[in-house]
Amino acid sequence: MDSATLLGYFLNQGYEVHTCSFQYGSKQNKYEEKAVSQIIEYYYKHGFLVVSHRINLENAFGDFRSNLLKTGGDIPEGHYEDESMKATVVPGRNLIFLSIMAGLAESIGAKIVAIGVHSGDHAIYPDCRPEFVAAAHNAIELSTGGKVKVVAPFLLDDKAGILHRGLNDFTLKVPYELTRTCYKDQEYACGKCGSCQERIEAFHNLGIEDPIIYEAE
Amino acid sequence: MDSATLLGYFLNQGYEVHTCSFQYGSKQNKYEEKAVSQIIEYYYKHGFLVVSHRINLENAFGDFRSNLLKTGGDIPEGHYEDESMKATVVPGRNLIFLSIMAGLAESIGAKIVAIGVHSGDHAIYPDCRPEFVAAAHNAIELSTGGKVKVVAPFLLDDKAGILHRGLNDFTLKVPYELTRTCYKDQEYACGKCGSCQERIEAFHNLGIEDPIIYEAE
Repeated sequence: MDSATLLGYFLNQGYEVHTCSFQYGSKQNKYEEKAVSQIIEYYYKHGFLVVSHRINLENAFGDFRSNLLKTGGDIPEGHYEDESMKATVVPGRNLIFLSIMAGLAESIGAKIVAIGVHSGDHAIYPDCRPEFVAAAHNAIELSTGGKVKVVAPFLLDDKAGILHRGLNDFTLKVPYELTRTCYKDQEYACGKCGSCQERIEAFHNLGIEDPIIYEAE
Repeated sequence: MDSATLLGYFLNQGYEVHTCSFQYGSKQNKYEEKAVSQIIEYYYKHGFLVVSHRINLENAFGDFRSNLLKTGGDIPEGHYEDESMKATVVPGRNLIFLSIMAGLAESIGAKIVAIGVHSGDHAIYPDCRPEFVAAAHNAIELSTGGKVKVVAPFLLDDKAGILHRGLNDFTLKVPYELTRTCYKDQEYACGKCGSCQERIEAFHNLGIEDPIIYEAE
C-alpha cells in the first residue's frame, strides 16, 4: 500500500519514475513481486510508463536474523505496537535499500530517492523514524556529492492517511486491490499479523471495504 | 592494503573480526577475492581466526555506471588526483557496503563496523570523506537503534601512513605481499592506474621495496 501510493504520488506530479523492488529472502517476497508486476501494468494501461528494477539481495541478507525472512521463525500475530512485532525488524533494511537506490539514481541521473515509511512504522522500526530518514538523507547527499536526495512524503501520515491520499488526491486512484500487505508466506492475506491488522484498521477507519481476500474473518 | 591493515589493526587489539568482501562486478574482483582468502589464511596460520563473509551484489550493481566496473569503460591511467580518476567512482558504494555490514553486525551481535578509507581517497571519492563517514555513522546508529557504530581508523592517514602502521604498530606485520591494489582486470598490477601509483608512492616514501609484481617498470 505504501509503495504503491508512493508511486501514484510521483506519477501524479509528472515525475519519470523508476521503481526498485528487492528480493531479500522475505517470506512475502514472491507475492510482492507479483504485486509489483500487476501495479506497474495497471499504470502502463493508463498511460504511465514506469521503469522497474528488480534487485536480488538474497545473498547479502543470507546471514541476517529476522522472523520476516524465510530463514527466521514464525511471523507473530497481533497488533503492530505489540513487543512481539519486533521480531519482524530486518536489521538495517531501509538504509540498505536507500543506499542501493541512491547509487542507481546517481548512475542514471535521477535526483530523488523516495521511500514510503509512515508514522505507523515508527514504534517498532528504527529505520522508519523521522530522525533516521533525515540522517539517511544527509549520508546520501554527502555520498553522492549533492546529486541525490531522500524524500519520504508519508513520514507523518498513518496508514489511513496514506489510503485516503491514494483514493482521493491523485487523478488516477491507486489500485489497492493489487497491493500485498501480509507478512506471511501464503497466497491469501492472513488477517492476523501486525501488517494485516494495520491495513484492516486503515480501511475500517475510512469506512471503505478492503478489496483483497483474507484467509480469516 | 587499506582493508588488510584494518584487519591487522583490530586483530592486534584482540577483537573478534568478521570480514566482508563484496563481489559487485568490479574489474579487480576476482583478484581481490584471492587476496582475501590468502590474507585470512595468513592470519589463521598465525593463530587468528577470522570469519569471512563473501557477499554477492553483482545484481544490485548491474545498472550502475563506473569505469571500475566490468560494464564500464577503461580504467584511466595517471595520478589519483587527476580529474580522469573520477571515472572510477562507483556511485554510493561505501554506503551500500557499510549499510549491509551494519545489518549483518546487528544480526550477529557485532558492535562496530569498520572501513579503511583514508585521506588519499578524499579528493576523488565523496564517500571516503570525514563528513561522509560521520553522516554514515549517524544514519547507522539511528537505523540500528544505537546497536552499531561506524569507525574509520585511517580516516586522516595517507597511504604511506597506513603502510607504516601495518609494518610497525602491530605484533604481527600485515602481509602486503598478499594484497591487491590495481584496478585493472589483469593478474599482475599495471603500475599505471591511480590506485597502483598511490601504492608505489607509499612504498617509495617509506623507502621500502613493494613485494608485489608489476607488469610495467
